[in-house]
Amino acid sequence: MNNEKIPYKIYLSEQEMPKAWYNLRADMKVKPAPLLSPKTLKPITLEELSEVFCEELAKQEIDENTAYFPIPDEIRNFYKMYRPSPLVRAYCLEEKLQTPAHIYYKFEGNNTSGSHKLNSAIAQAYYAKKQGLKGVTTETGAGQWGTALSMACSYFGLDCKVYMVKCSYKQKPFRREVMRTYGANVTPSPSDQTEIGKKILQEFPGTNGSLGCAISEAVETASKLDGYRYVLGSVLNQVLLHQTIIGLETKAALDKYDIKPDIVIGCAGGGSNLGGLIAPFVGDKIKNGTDVRIIAVEPASCPSLTRGKYAYDYCDTGNVCPLQKMYTLGSGFIPAASHAGGLRYHGMSSILSQLYHDGLMEATSVKQTEVFEAAEFFARVEGTLPAPESAHAIKVAIDEALKCKQTGESKNIVFGLTGTGYFDMMSYQKFHDGVMSDYIPTDEEIKIALDKLPDINV
Amino acid sequence: MNNEKIPYKIYLSEQEMPKAWYNLRADMKVKPAPLLSPKTLKPITLEELSEVFCEELAKQEIDENTAYFPIPDEIRNFYKMYRPSPLVRAYCLEEKLQTPAHIYYKFEGNNTSGSHKLNSAIAQAYYAKKQGLKGVTTETGAGQWGTALSMACSYFGLDCKVYMVKCSYKQKPFRREVMRTYGANVTPSPSDQTEIGKKILQEFPGTNGSLGCAISEAVETASKLDGYRYVLGSVLNQVLLHQTIIGLETKAALDKYDIKPDIVIGCAGGGSNLGGLIAPFVGDKIKNGTDVRIIAVEPASCPSLTRGKYAYDYCDTGNVCPLQKMYTLGSGFIPAASHAGGLRYHGMSSILSQLYHDGLMEATSVKQTEVFEAAEFFARVEGTLPAPESAHAIKVAIDEALKCKQTGESKNIVFGLTGTGYFDMMSYQKFHDGVMSDYIPTDEEIKIALDKLPDINV
Repeated sequence: MNNEKIPYKIYLSEQEMPKAWYNLRADMKVKPAPLLSPKTLKPITLEELSEVFCEELAKQEIDENTAYFPIPDEIRNFYKMYRPSPLVRAYCLEEKLQTPAHIYYKFEGNNTSGSHKLNSAIAQAYYAKKQGLKGVTTETGAGQWGTALSMACSYFGLDCKVYMVKCSYKQKPFRREVMRTYGANVTPSPSDQTEIGKKILQEFPGTNGSLGCAISEAVETASKLDGYRYVLGSVLNQVLLHQTIIGLETKAALDKYDIKPDIVIGCAGGGSNLGGLIAPFVGDKIKNGTDVRIIAVEPASCPSLTRGKYAYDYCDTGNVCPLQKMYTLGSGFIPAASHAGGLRYHGMSSILSQLYHDGLMEATSVKQTEVFEAAEFFARVEGTLPAPESAHAIKVAIDEALKCKQTGESKNIVFGLTGTGYFDMMSYQKFHDGVMSDYIPTDEEIKIALDKLPDINV
Repeated sequence: MNNEKIPYKIYLSEQEMPKAWYNLRADMKVKPAPLLSPKTLKPITLEELSEVFCEELAKQEIDENTAYFPIPDEIRNFYKMYRPSPLVRAYCLEEKLQTPAHIYYKFEGNNTSGSHKLNSAIAQAYYAKKQGLKGVTTETGAGQWGTALSMACSYFGLDCKVYMVKCSYKQKPFRREVMRTYGANVTPSPSDQTEIGKKILQEFPGTNGSLGCAISEAVETASKLDGYRYVLGSVLNQVLLHQTIIGLETKAALDKYDIKPDIVIGCAGGGSNLGGLIAPFVGDKIKNGTDVRIIAVEPASCPSLTRGKYAYDYCDTGNVCPLQKMYTLGSGFIPAASHAGGLRYHGMSSILSQLYHDGLMEATSVKQTEVFEAAEFFARVEGTLPAPESAHAIKVAIDEALKCKQTGESKNIVFGLTGTGYFDMMSYQKFHDGVMSDYIPTDEEIKIALDKLPDINV
């Protein structure tokens, strides 16, 4: 037992930083269902997957038995430039709420990409470089992933081609300029550089694009260029694996002060941050029966866990990527325009879907306006202005802390603060001006999208 | 001697954080000349100064004998939310430059205001609150100071009225929204809320404003409202005092690993960051004769130290604030539009001016385009995307490291990285698009402004 007063921020030393990523699947009693090839609709082989991803990443994607993957030195050295991230004791928030709860948050925003995305971007760029590739392609919506990948590619001298959804390209010129600063080639999507882009432009000349279309353009470009691969920033097992650096650091920091979390909360879009944050705590729960609640928070506008179906579905709108079994609203589901772009995904990581299905994780959904209320409240009390995505977790953490106030329980609440909102001020402006919508899809809308799930589920 | 390998980032523990600010004037053999009242042109009294500033701050402003001012607990607790800031060993930069120099930078950008300005904002807000004031007024150009003050006022429940230069208000809507998130009242200047604003609007209906005008509006508003004071984010002795937290932390971190800096570099606008960073090192130099070079870096477009005159001048364009003896280009000097808004100030802190005058500090100036080249290079190598202001120090640090490469010397170079450039992407865009100007004032332009210095100097 460490009796020292818990500081505002717990930093691990470099020596204490995790040396391996943790593959939760190795400890799961029920493993997630395998990925299916979009061509054969049969479990995808390592060979097939290696056509899409770098070999090492394809191996990580499929491996459900190796519990720990050592983090290569090159990646650890990059991590040292912006990690360990602080585990913050939210003393001011606790006092403001007058709660007996102890609130902690793991803050991933202290790097130029502004979010946790960099943790996987640097790993994916490293393996691409190691395989001798020339570059990678990807899509970006809100821009966090594109920024992170630009930084990672710049570090390893890889070319980086980003297809940015046209409306974001126009509305978020600053994100675009950050990517350019890191030497990335940023193209508004749809573009006339690809067949699919040309086709869409012909059909819908004035379109502002969509994530589905940008993915298709990025995949097409990678397949046509020699020495390129397409990379993804969420959903995949490999991404969750790299993101376990978040949870492992969090657990090490808590262990240092002998703190046992009662509740661990994270926002969930594709699941990369949440999966990374909770992995070691869920592993503990499975192996040692520890009593910890895990809560996934999703936007009410895109409620894959709370209102979706557990079924095989395509990961992308264009149906070119592998299928996975997951909680999904249907790959044809178009979420309402919301200001948490990073959570606008129709499905959910297969690992998280399985955990939810098995009762190892809870899920809840929150509305946009209450999320921004929590975000602004948090900014004023704790200083840091959060990303709208991260604020979903803040909202539920505050709710849980207020429950503790009623019951008098002094629970340890830990949540993931995935990033800062510096590039989301247009959303905050809408909130300040009182013109933010709280659209929630109707049962009918969800049913229509779910009715189009692929036949494989029948 | 600590033989442990120096980590990428040196963090002090909470216990190691400075408990007092350091007043360098107490150790200076030649003290800076006293402030003069703009009404009497005689040394300003504490009573006169207390009409403008909070009492405690007025005392700090004038006191040239007390070496240490204890930091009140309330401020220390706020500091703990975002400090200590890391002292980073720039391993990647050293390798990229292939220099034997060891490069360190003190990074002040890991807070929502994005810069070091918060260090003094929280102190000024605290003393205002302690004195029972209702609120404060200020001006902001680029927006860093306004953001920092908004955060500080929000924390202590003070009203905050910010006059934001109209062109920034329009061009930097996101900065404005950050301030609104913290509850500040942001008014584009000139406005019709003040006499001076109305007058200027009548004379120049389409004007985009100026810092001088915004200062005048803020001062007028403070003087007309009961329980309000005007506050400033740079230049003043009190601000440099609060900013010594930067230098004290830097020195403590270096001492921990027994590192003696050979060169300390900082960008200089009004001088708040530089003054704070160098204070303990200059103190050492004066008291113990340590051999350390101190370099102030200013923009070639606004070269107060390198091309200005050491004379009494007004601190503001409107000539309502006290006069101080400083290196100045004349309070009527209008610097060319540049992208380092924080360095566009006609004068320089009187402490720094005296140090420069006495040969205790060097100064150099750099051009805008080479600054952005250094900024982009740094971003790609070290990850962090710097503010244009901070990049002035980067440019000179790189130059010094390259000199070491030639001589084979393994000097310890320390520089201040005052903030991030997340709200400066429009400037980066101009750099990427190759449309950035490198205007340098002519001798004639400087002479004209200097000819208008107040008569007191005759």
